[in-house]
Amino acid sequence: MFYIDVLGIVAFSISGVLIALEKKMDLFGILIIAFVTAVGGGTLRDLLIGHTPVSWMQNITISYIILGTTVATILFRSKINYLRTSLFLFDTIGISIYTMAGIELGIEAKLHPLICIALGTMTASFGGVIRDILCNEIPVIFRKEIYATACILGGVTYFILLQFPIQDNWVFIISSAIVVLIRLLAVKFKISLPRLYTEEFEQ
Amino acid sequence: MFYIDVLGIVAFSISGVLIALEKKMDLFGILIIAFVTAVGGGTLRDLLIGHTPVSWMQNITISYIILGTTVATILFRSKINYLRTSLFLFDTIGISIYTMAGIELGIEAKLHPLICIALGTMTASFGGVIRDILCNEIPVIFRKEIYATACILGGVTYFILLQFPIQDNWVFIISSAIVVLIRLLAVKFKISLPRLYTEEFEQ
Amino acid sequence: MFYIDVLGIVAFSISGVLIALEKKMDLFGILIIAFVTAVGGGTLRDLLIGHTPVSWMQNITISYIILGTTVATILFRSKINYLRTSLFLFDTIGISIYTMAGIELGIEAKLHPLICIALGTMTASFGGVIRDILCNEIPVIFRKEIYATACILGGVTYFILLQFPIQDNWVFIISSAIVVLIRLLAVKFKISLPRLYTEEFEQ
Repeated sequence: MFYIDVLGIVAFSISGVLIALEKKMDLFGILIIAFVTAVGGGTLRDLLIGHTPVSWMQNITISYIILGTTVATILFRSKINYLRTSLFLFDTIGISIYTMAGIELGIEAKLHPLICIALGTMTASFGGVIRDILCNEIPVIFRKEIYATACILGGVTYFILLQFPIQDNWVFIISSAIVVLIRLLAVKFKISLPRLYTEEFEQ
Repeated sequence: MFYIDVLGIVAFSISGVLIALEKKMDLFGILIIAFVTAVGGGTLRDLLIGHTPVSWMQNITISYIILGTTVATILFRSKINYLRTSLFLFDTIGISIYTMAGIELGIEAKLHPLICIALGTMTASFGGVIRDILCNEIPVIFRKEIYATACILGGVTYFILLQFPIQDNWVFIISSAIVVLIRLLAVKFKISLPRLYTEEFEQ
Repeated sequence: MFYIDVLGIVAFSISGVLIALEKKMDLFGILIIAFVTAVGGGTLRDLLIGHTPVSWMQNITISYIILGTTVATILFRSKINYLRTSLFLFDTIGISIYTMAGIELGIEAKLHPLICIALGTMTASFGGVIRDILCNEIPVIFRKEIYATACILGGVTYFILLQFPIQDNWVFIISSAIVVLIRLLAVKFKISLPRLYTEEFEQ
């Protein structure tokens, strides 16, 4: 499963580098934002369940991948637009893998299925949230796009499939595919959650 | 004691939903802000003392209460103004209970009384701080209102009462009442901590 | 080593008080910002490696130092400009000590040298990052000044020296001196990391 995991780390790092460049940060700032985007969700998850030292501290390969990706993204930043579609795909696969990784750690810690799904969604999405906070933006996830929703529905699928006599690997693969599918469809058809702000609410 | 605890969760969730609506977040964003406001302080407390998995992960009822409150607040958001007084009361009771819960966990972990009071104050106030950070505001608690001060004085009361032969339950109840009283008086008489900014300080 | 440690706590607390005053916070806000600036980095480090309750909760002296420094800084805030040079020196010494403390805890937890250096750099710099986030600013460390770079190079020095038959105390002292030296030189000669933002990158 590790090879697919790498896709997520790479895609998340690149998205961090791009936003940090826009914010005119220096080399160190860019590296931190890339790092936080890639491992922030998993770190929050590890802290909440008490799984310390947190994962990226115990596996130096993760740091190397982020470092390499950051350098490459900076060097080829003018060409990055040609990769938009691949990046979006990597990112989507990354989210789905991160979600399932979070869910499985929750199950190991014997947490309630709903809490496991929350943990998976956090793993997938909080890297981006911390990135946006560090860049002084309202986290984009709170404002548009079906992103967390895809993770949540993938998580629900996971627990439904667990009720059936299906092999664990397949449960993982099918649920991940659901996350990918929902996000692709949502972006293609421009579906997003309704904003609940209404004129009448304004003072 | 659990029934009173619910008041705090409900009041904190509602305050989260209201600010998220103002910020034009989508359904997912609103839910997260409600959640963070309600359990953020307790989560920080649990992390700092190493009490993991954190409390809300071990008690699914908390999630149900927040979810229910969020849905109800969204549905009846145009009517919420009629409840301002009750909400303020719930919020104040919530703060006092959260403070005492934090203090008692600190005592269990054999921490210094001052650290216990800090822990109680954090439990009561950091949900609001994280809410404000996620909404890209300077946390309101740093700028106005006697809020933390009420928690701190309630905590001091707690440790003073512990010196006397009073039953534990009464120590809890009297200290909580002090928190409630100070906050109500402060709001009624518009008392707030002095700002220390002065013209001469400006360059 | 403890006496030198105090310099860092004092310098970091003062920098927190000064920025909180500029942001027109009240007494409580100022105290929190001072506290967070002084112990935020160490707290993050303790959480990531699972060293709980975190350090400042187990050593009440730290709280007293921060409290005393905050009160003194507020009282003498109009005179603080005369101390700019001493403060900068305290701050620099503080950073170097914090870096080495983080590295040594990482080694104790048997982490990879690169992770230890990251941990040391975090200990030294994340107090300031959290301070800036709470004050609703893009963390200054991401935008200018050789600060983290000094910590990282000091950390690299530490691990290089470990390869030689040098006494532990001297490894600590020489590496700390490297951090101090690099930062002083960088400020004197106005060296900073290149910003990688270029016009062509803009849409």
